[in-house]
This record gives sequence, structure tokens and C-alpha cells, in this order.
Amino acid sequence: MSFNSFGRVLRVTTWGESHGPAIGAVVDGCPPGLALSESDIQPWLDKRRPGASRFTTQRRESDTVRILSGAFEGRTTGTPISLLIENEDQRSKDYADVAKAFRPGHADYTYDVKYGVRDWRGGGRSSARETAARVAAGAVARLVIPEVRIRAYLVELGGDAVDRSAIDLEEIERNPFNCPDAAAAGRWEQKLDEARKAGSSLGAVVECVADGVPPGWGAPVYAKLDAELAAAMMSMNAAKGVEIGDGFAAARLRGEENADAMRAGPTFLSNHAGGILGGISSGQPVIVRVAFKPTSSILTPMPTIDRDGNETEIVTKGRHDPCVGIRAAPIVEAMMALVLADQKLLHRAQCG
Amino acid sequence: MSFNSFGRVLRVTTWGESHGPAIGAVVDGCPPGLALSESDIQPWLDKRRPGASRFTTQRRESDTVRILSGAFEGRTTGTPISLLIENEDQRSKDYADVAKAFRPGHADYTYDVKYGVRDWRGGGRSSARETAARVAAGAVARLVIPEVRIRAYLVELGGDAVDRSAIDLEEIERNPFNCPDAAAAGRWEQKLDEARKAGSSLGAVVECVADGVPPGWGAPVYAKLDAELAAAMMSMNAAKGVEIGDGFAAARLRGEENADAMRAGPTFLSNHAGGILGGISSGQPVIVRVAFKPTSSILTPMPTIDRDGNETEIVTKGRHDPCVGIRAAPIVEAMMALVLADQKLLHRAQCG
Amino acid sequence: MSFNSFGRVLRVTTWGESHGPAIGAVVDGCPPGLALSESDIQPWLDKRRPGASRFTTQRRESDTVRILSGAFEGRTTGTPISLLIENEDQRSKDYADVAKAFRPGHADYTYDVKYGVRDWRGGGRSSARETAARVAAGAVARLVIPEVRIRAYLVELGGDAVDRSAIDLEEIERNPFNCPDAAAAGRWEQKLDEARKAGSSLGAVVECVADGVPPGWGAPVYAKLDAELAAAMMSMNAAKGVEIGDGFAAARLRGEENADAMRAGPTFLSNHAGGILGGISSGQPVIVRVAFKPTSSILTPMPTIDRDGNETEIVTKGRHDPCVGIRAAPIVEAMMALVLADQKLLHRAQCG
Amino acid sequence: MSFNSFGRVLRVTTWGESHGPAIGAVVDGCPPGLALSESDIQPWLDKRRPGASRFTTQRRESDTVRILSGAFEGRTTGTPISLLIENEDQRSKDYADVAKAFRPGHADYTYDVKYGVRDWRGGGRSSARETAARVAAGAVARLVIPEVRIRAYLVELGGDAVDRSAIDLEEIERNPFNCPDAAAAGRWEQKLDEARKAGSSLGAVVECVADGVPPGWGAPVYAKLDAELAAAMMSMNAAKGVEIGDGFAAARLRGEENADAMRAGPTFLSNHAGGILGGISSGQPVIVRVAFKPTSSILTPMPTIDRDGNETEIVTKGRHDPCVGIRAAPIVEAMMALVLADQKLLHRAQCG
Repeated sequence: MSFNSFGRVLRVTTWGESHGPAIGAVVDGCPPGLALSESDIQPWLDKRRPGASRFTTQRRESDTVRILSGAFEGRTTGTPISLLIENEDQRSKDYADVAKAFRPGHADYTYDVKYGVRDWRGGGRSSARETAARVAAGAVARLVIPEVRIRAYLVELGGDAVDRSAIDLEEIERNPFNCPDAAAAGRWEQKLDEARKAGSSLGAVVECVADGVPPGWGAPVYAKLDAELAAAMMSMNAAKGVEIGDGFAAARLRGEENADAMRAGPTFLSNHAGGILGGISSGQPVIVRVAFKPTSSILTPMPTIDRDGNETEIVTKGRHDPCVGIRAAPIVEAMMALVLADQKLLHRAQCG
Repeated sequence: MSFNSFGRVLRVTTWGESHGPAIGAVVDGCPPGLALSESDIQPWLDKRRPGASRFTTQRRESDTVRILSGAFEGRTTGTPISLLIENEDQRSKDYADVAKAFRPGHADYTYDVKYGVRDWRGGGRSSARETAARVAAGAVARLVIPEVRIRAYLVELGGDAVDRSAIDLEEIERNPFNCPDAAAAGRWEQKLDEARKAGSSLGAVVECVADGVPPGWGAPVYAKLDAELAAAMMSMNAAKGVEIGDGFAAARLRGEENADAMRAGPTFLSNHAGGILGGISSGQPVIVRVAFKPTSSILTPMPTIDRDGNETEIVTKGRHDPCVGIRAAPIVEAMMALVLADQKLLHRAQCG
Repeated sequence: MSFNSFGRVLRVTTWGESHGPAIGAVVDGCPPGLALSESDIQPWLDKRRPGASRFTTQRRESDTVRILSGAFEGRTTGTPISLLIENEDQRSKDYADVAKAFRPGHADYTYDVKYGVRDWRGGGRSSARETAARVAAGAVARLVIPEVRIRAYLVELGGDAVDRSAIDLEEIERNPFNCPDAAAAGRWEQKLDEARKAGSSLGAVVECVADGVPPGWGAPVYAKLDAELAAAMMSMNAAKGVEIGDGFAAARLRGEENADAMRAGPTFLSNHAGGILGGISSGQPVIVRVAFKPTSSILTPMPTIDRDGNETEIVTKGRHDPCVGIRAAPIVEAMMALVLADQKLLHRAQCG
Repeated sequence: MSFNSFGRVLRVTTWGESHGPAIGAVVDGCPPGLALSESDIQPWLDKRRPGASRFTTQRRESDTVRILSGAFEGRTTGTPISLLIENEDQRSKDYADVAKAFRPGHADYTYDVKYGVRDWRGGGRSSARETAARVAAGAVARLVIPEVRIRAYLVELGGDAVDRSAIDLEEIERNPFNCPDAAAAGRWEQKLDEARKAGSSLGAVVECVADGVPPGWGAPVYAKLDAELAAAMMSMNAAKGVEIGDGFAAARLRGEENADAMRAGPTFLSNHAGGILGGISSGQPVIVRVAFKPTSSILTPMPTIDRDGNETEIVTKGRHDPCVGIRAAPIVEAMMALVLADQKLLHRAQCG
């Protein structure tokens, strides 16, 4: 029931602050005998790594992962897998102002009022840096569900949506936005350049599709697959909304439009449900969308208060992503992998 | 870690099928010494009770709750509170067709493929009837957080939204839709009558606001208040989307528009965040919105398959809500109460 | 993480007070498709039922169990199984003294100081009556592990031990003590008659053996099979000690005496370990012993204090077992079944 | 629900193998604002450290702990505390035989049959080295319960018990056995020298007393303080028995002898119960005893089988403690601290 753990039988605990010596994850409950080395994890971390383009934070981290336990002679042993990533490029002095006043939209105020103490260097535990540990853990989870292919990409940036008929997953790697629509990527470049130069930031919507999930994963009521996904996605920094399948648009359909008819196979004639019925996977692709707010760390001066309650203004210097949604895509994939792997094992527990 | 339990230190386990002898909830971890009798719970169940208008299912249930344990001489004792509601108006014969074929959009297929067995009478465990147990448990949770006022209402039905400037919470009780805008309620009556007569159904969006939540409830990373709320809301039948604060709309704002500036007090100049920053309550109203798909049980014939995989058609007779979103409002309130009460106790555990 | 739940993937929540309307258990996570009706549970409750001889409490309860959910057409559905047992023979007036003063050795004082309120009728939640719910839940767990045979019996009563070379499991049913040694049963009859007439009570040691547990159940470190068993057994009323295999006697052996040598098969040349090595079952019989203190409810006047802190004396009238260990045997069996069934499912989750 | 985590609201996850690069613990849920630096942890690790006398393993580890997260400017922040201890003195070649055959009494066989793979170097995860992580975590737990004083010591070694009337806690530090009776320590030196030279090993019984526990910690039924302690203690390597208070001896007392009478104060006239009534602390000292079997790693050749099932003999070279119970004392203290700190926070959650 811990605050920093996630999952039921495949359980991940992450730890670490932005400007501490390291961050890490412990993955417990992983099946034994899976081939595992650092090279299974590092590529996913590289995808998330900052500094790859001018559209992400210029913080330079190699994000090199080390496996400290749980694998032996290249295979998982069934014991906890400890993953460690050292922090390298720390400039705590960038945060001197943050120590004294609260950045609007940030966790500064709430951490301070809850705990009475706060590691203000780079946001401490509330930093997006924590998500590197999720990506590392997610890479292990992927090994548990080789039957599943997961892909996440941006479908909206700064309110500008992709053309859904033009989505081409090959396109994702060709632009710095994880954007599956080349035309949209072109527009986004302009939009984000403008926002970045103005010291502002933009939001985004990430879509994630998991193909190959067999029917039967999930459970009724409180452990519903969609409920688990909702928690997983909303636990990410800057996430403000989660949809399964048609999501909010489903609320605008009529019953006969929304219900996915079935034919022999079984096949479904549509997938408004996003692959989940009654909390249990239907065998169709599992589809989730997550809304990310614009980065709260901006160069525009904002009215705020200091720790003593006095009114002041704050400008967030540091090095920040002008759109956190871009680098969120690999994290959304990791959370999808963690939920699905956990549910696979849970299903096996109950139903053999 | 059970499938049918919810919460961390205030933990609710629900049980029961639509057409079994009874349904119920066990509430564990409730603080001792709180005044509790059936009369603290029954009014909330009455709000959820079907049959109040032609816009909800005509199933007639008194939904009378009995407290079987955990209270003594009118006060909670700190031991588990067992709540029992007998099922009364069961017409299993309505479901003969459902036993043989899968209703599109329903849990019929996924339960069958997962478990190999399914209580087809009224949806069994996947019935919305389970939510009565949530409402009963939520009534207990409300006693734990007397400082909080929770209100849920529909802001959209069948794609027709309320005028936000016209929202009047007094209005909610005056129409059968839990609608806070009298003009919208009028339009909705027509819309829903039309859909009902056509054997169709409509979706809805429910908004829930919790006032009085002090700053500091919630926790970083995986036990974030918003993640807990997302799981709670998405665990409800027919829920397909969850938003906190501005939600998906926040993804279309710029950083300086979205970040809620602070002034002495502390007060906030806006509440785009929906009362949660970094997973922890900020002291502002906590705001959640939930999208409900249109009822899957409709009179329109739908293509489907039977248990042997043969193609067929199905019409769902039974007695169903033409819009499940209407009766969802009190359930959304209950889930909000359960999450907040649990987080209050958790905060007290860690921070005293 | 609830106080009144037990188990990880097969999870039992019990509720109810001695003199409330009913007690019960909710069993969540049970595999689907198992044949289940009340007749699978009732015989185990009958074994635990009081009033069978003069050596157990004269409270008369039929302890009739009803299955309220989770089974359909005689098979488990994978949804929570709600079991209810009504309380029948309640004489609350017997407990008037207990309302005012604390019975030494009882939970009266600690419940009062912890919760500030206490259901003093029959011990409320601390009553041994709660164990009927465990026995009912344990009967369900037995269905999950048909490969395992569990037997519990007394090996010591009032300090008088059975002759281990004379143990005959057939004997257990032939005397009112669950004693596997006919000669000891004869001596115990005298001992207990004497204690009962003197208004005193005696303790006992119960041994439980599970045959047929395959190797591999359990897990390292904190979820060790022996740790789970220790928690399960120590959670019973009046339990004060738990041993696995040779237990405390193992601390008096030398390394070469204690280590169970292996031969092809594999077979073991001895079973000092009690069937568990490194927290994981070895394939040998799993052996646990539990020490039960003498019943605290006695007719001998004891010095105590009342709720206001004043010194007084108390005599516990009511109807009590002169040796709670006798009726503990079926409860020990139930807890063994619950732990093993849970571990079987957990093992399946991780290792397939 | 993870296998390698312990606790409910103060939750510890340990990881690491004997001969991997490091071992560690993540402590989640720790209250914020507590003074914490490595110097609060290191002294407890030093007490457990091997190599201090000829009566413990000659493996040389500095066991230097590093705090990687969760503390800022010398105080806990409420976020997870990651503790890391590097492994230094590894001689994997000592274990070549262990790779091929199973050591009787060890976890070799059960790990192999459960997981199909096993880190045989030094026992891997089943090594007593894991307990260093517990001691480090326990040092953090101690900070949460400054009102409690915990002391563990051996009361029996190789079947030779201390004279209880001669127990002097000052004596513990004066001999290499954590023995509170100088005369017994003298005898034990001879006994253990003899066993060590014979290539054998001895068992021990450790007693642990926690003074200052206020009444009210713990909970009914499955989260009883004694059940939690039993699980905690039995989760330790080589533990085979756990007793609370008089434990097994209580089963030989009569009701009036065993029940601890109360007088104004409140005070108790005795403490047979070991400070726990009905699963809840009574305000008296909490007393636990744990039986440790003799070390399974011995120089005496033992019949066993190899991984292919062929019969063979094995001698465990490596460097081992001739009596694991000696170094178990600080670990027992750590587990006591972890349980009590967790229960303190849980009590605060429910009862304020």
C-alpha cells in the first residue's frame, strides 16, 4: 500500500529526487527465466532521454541504467530487480528562487504544506526525472508480455490535432515530436518554436495502443483494466485527463453507435470500447489517451507567494521541456506495459 | 490487493450479483466513535434508487440497507462495518437471451472468456446494481470527512452541455437528471424521451466538486490524489474518461494561462488544476469530470455471436436506464468521498 | 492493507461481532468453475460448532452458512463469495459486568484504550466467534487445493503431551478433544473436568500437517510460506506461539542433525524443516504447531480495574470453552488452507 | 502485495543478492522532518557486521550505507528513502559445489524447483546478507518511534539457556554472543568453539523486549500486533519458531495463572501476555522470542542430490557463522522496530 509502489503481483517501487545522487526502481514479482540485461532497458531510456532536440530540456543525462540484482547469467531469477540510474547534470543553483517561492502549477506549495520540508532542487521527487525509473521498469515489464506490441504517440500539441486518416506509425521516429502525421509535425515545429521563444509552454495529448492483448486480462469492479490504466496514466506528472477508447466522445454517441457489434471469429465491427469491456480485455487493441497540461516551468513571470506567505513573482529558469507531452510518449508506453504485465500475471493467478 | 476492494487504510470490499439474494459492502478501517446508523446511509441510497422517474430503469428496489457489524450503541467501533442490501425485484426470465448470446458493449463476452462461467442474470457482478454497495460505503466515508462538501451533477447529456454560467446547484434536485441548469434540463427531457422511445440510449458527463478539502491530502507518484480519483471513477460501470480540473482542455492552454497564480492567504487566482498539484490537494475545490458511455442495453437489434461462436442478433429487453449517467451522479459522489476519506487517514498516518 | 483481511491474491475479509445480528466472510480472488454449495462449507463449521460436549461452551449456534454471492448454478464464478452466518443464541445480559470492568487476559482493556468505545457483548469483535467466518472461508480455500490434505489435532493439553509414537489420526474423531492418542484423551478428560469444575481453564498445543503440497509454493524474504503461516496462526485468538517443523527444538540440534539430507527422487531422509526451506515448500509435509493460552474467561475472581480506573474484581460468567485449543483445531486447518491456496495462486502468477 | 516488501504504511522493500554488486532497501511512507543521516544507520549495521570475532563468519564487509534519496539537508522529506550497501568481499569460487548440488537445510533446492534458475553464489537472495538491508531500514524505523527502547539478546545457545535471574542487559556488549548472562557467555564460548572446530553449527533462541510501547498499537484479527511480529520474525533466515510473552509455556498454565491481573494506574501484576492483548499493545513491554536453527552450511559431509537428481555428498566451504542466532539479535531488533513504527502510523491513521 506504499505511496511509491505500483502494481499488484508485478510491483514496481521507484525512488529518487531530481538532484540527488541517483534515481531507481525495484521490480518485484517478475517471472524467472526471462533474458534480461542492461541492453534490454537502455534503448527505452534513450528514447526518453532529454536533450535530443531543441524541443526538449537541455539537461544532459546519459541515463545509463545498471541492474544491481534479480538477474543472474543474463536471466531473471524471480527475485527483485534493482535498477539504478545516476544523476549527472545537476545545476542546483538554477533553483535558488524556487527554494524561496512556489512556482504556480507546480508541486512546490503542496509538498511544502504537506511535509513541512521540500527538496527544492529541480522539483525533488516531483520532478519528471522520476519517470526515467518508470521507463526502466517498463522495459522489464515488456519482457513479461512478448505477445503485446505497445506504441504511443502525440495526437495533439498545443490544441492542434493530427489528421487521424494520415496517421502513419513509421512517421513517429522521423520527427522530434513523436508525431505520426508528417504534416502536423511540420506545424508543431513552428508552434513550439514560437512558444519556446516566448518563454511559454504547450500541452499535448498522447495516444497509446497495445496490440496483441488477449481477451480476459483485467477484473471486475475495482481492479478493472481501465481503472488500473487510469491510475497509471494519471500518476504521471502533468497528466490531467485519461480516456479509454472513444472516451469523452463516447458520451456523445447513441447506444447503437457506441456498442461494438460482434461477428464470428470473434471479431468486432468497431472498437469504440478501446479493447476493454466490463474492466476486462476483449482481444481488441487497448487504446488509451492522456492529456498533458503545458509545462508549469515557464519564463513568463507569474504572481505567487513565498514560503512566508508574502506576495512575489517568480520566473522559472532551470532547463525545461517546452512541452512535457513530447517526452511523455515513452513513459505512457512504460505505464501501459507495467499495467498489462501485472494483469497478465494476476489473470494467471486466478484463472490458471 | 483484492479485485473487489478499494482504498488503502479505509478499505471497502463489495460483493454481490444483480439477481443473487443480496449485495453488500464491508468497510474496514473506519475511525471509531463516529455516530452511525442506517439513517446516515439510507438517504444516499434513495438518491441512487431506480424507478424515480420514467428516465431511469423501472426495476423496483427499496434498497434498504442494514448495518450488520461495526457499530454499537449508534457509534462506529473501529471494527469492520458490514452493510447488506437485499435484492427484491428480480426478473431473471428477462435475461434468457443474454444467457445464450453476448450483448455488444457489455461485459458478457469478456466475463465468459475470462472465467468460462458467467452469472447472466441481469449482468451478475457487472450489473450497475453493484454501485448501490458503493453508495452505502460512501455514506460511511462521508462521516470521516465532515469538513468536505461533495456535489455531483450532469454537465452534458447526449452531447448537449449545460450553460456553465447558468449552473445553479439548487436546480439539481428540481429535475430528474441531476442537472444544475434548468434550461438544459428541459432540453434533456425531450432528448431522452426521444431516445427512450426509439429503444436507444444516451451518454453523459458528470462533474463532481469537493469543497473544503484542506491542502496536503494525497501523495507523490503512484498514490497521487488524482491517480486515486481516476481509478475510482474509471472503476464505475460505463465510465470511459476522467478529467481533473481543466482536463483535456488544459492540453490546449499555454503555460501562463494554465498555471494558477497565487496570492497571499494563500489564495489562487484560478483553479485550472482542479485542486490538485503534484498529486496533493492544494486547498482549492477538487474537481473531477467523468464521461459515461450510452447504456449498452438497448432495444435496437445488434449483431453479435452466441456462446458457440455463431452469428446472431440480440435485443436487450430487461429494464434499463436510457442514460446511466443520470444515476451515476450519487455514485461519483460516493467514490469521491471514499477516496478523500482514505487520503485523509493516510495523510494522518504519515504526517500526524 | 485492511485490518480484517487476509491473503494476497485469494483474499478473505471477515466481519461481525459475537452478539450482533450475524458474522461473515468475503472471499475474493477464488478461481472460477469450482463446484461450490453450502454443503461444501457446512461440515467444516459443524466440526467447529460449540456445544458438542461438556468440554466446549454451551452456547447453542446452528452456525448455518449461506452463500450470498460468487456462485452460480453450483460453481464459483470468479467474483467475490459472500458467506453469512447468523448469530442465534445471544445472552447479552451475561456480559453486564464486562461492560464496566476489564477481564484480565482479554482484549477488553486494549480495545477500550485504542478505540474509546467497545462492543462488550461477548467480546464483540475479539470473540472467538469470528473464527467461524475463518472456517467458512477456509472451506472455500480447500476447493482451490484439492491436491492437499490438511489435518490438525492437539498434541498437548494442560501441559500433558501425547505419546508421539502412539499418534493415530483415526483417533481424532473418537474423542471430544481432537486428540490423536487414545490414552492421552482419557487423561485429558480428567484434567479438563477438574479444571472446569474449579472454574479454571487450560491451554493446549495444536499441530497441523498438510500433505501433498508440491515443492515451489512460497516466496523469498517477506512472503515466505513460513512467515505467512506464522501470521495466519498468530492472528487466531489466544495463540501465543508458532513453530514450523522442529521449531524451538531445532534450536537445540546441531547442524548435521537438523539439515534434512536428500536422496534421489528427490526424497528427504528427515523433515526437521517442516516442509519449508528458504520460505518455499520442499514437497515434504508442511508442519506447524500453535500454542494456545488457557481461556481468559474464568470463574475464578481476578483483580482488575473498571473503566474509570478503579480497582475491582471480576468473574467471567458467560458460557466459555474451558480449553479454547480444542475447538481451535478446525480453525488452524482453515488458516493452513487459506495460506496454501493463496500461495498456490501466487506461485502460478509468477511462475506460470 | 510484493514478495520483498514488508509493512503497511511504513513499507520496506529490500533487494539484492549475496554476491551481486550491492544490496539495498527502499523505505516508503516515513514521516517527514525526522533528522536522518548515514550516521543514524551505520552503528546498527556495525553491530550486525560479520567478522567481529571468531564466532561469526570471516567475510569482511564494511557494510557502509549510503542514503540515495528521501533526505534533504539532514531531514527526511516524506519521499522514499533509498539505502544502498555495496558488496565487497565476494569469493564466488567458494560456491562452485553449491552450483551443482543442493545443500541440505538450505534454500538451494526449493529456489531451483520454484524458479528453474538460481543465483548460487553465496545463496543469492536467500543469503543472510539480505538482513543487512533490514537492519538499515530498521534504523530508519527507530526514528519514527523515539518513545520505544528495543533490546534483543540470546537466551539460549545450543540448548544451553541463560539463568533468567542473572540477566543483565549491560552484559550484552561485553561478550561476542549478545548474551545477557556472563556465566552463560563463558559456557557458550566453549560450546561454540567445539562445534566450530568439529565443522558443525548450533542453534539459538533470541529474546527481544520493546519498552515504552503505548497501549493501543495493533489491530484486531488479521493485523494483530502479534501476527505482524510473528510474520516479521519468521521471515528471517533460519527462524523456526516465534513466541509472544510466555508463548508455548502459556499453554501449560491455568487460566488464573496466565491472565495478567490489573491494578490502578493502570498497572499489571504480571506480563504473561508479552504486552499484547487481543492483538493490541497493552502498555506493558512487548516481548518476543525467536528460535533459530543451527546454520545449515557446515563442513560435515551431507548426503544430497545434484541438479540432475543424482545422489552425491556436499560439504559447504564458504565462510559461515557457526551460529546464525548470534548475529540475528540486531536483525530481530530491526524487525521489531519496523513492525512497531508501522503500527504506530496505522494507529494514527485510524484513531487520530
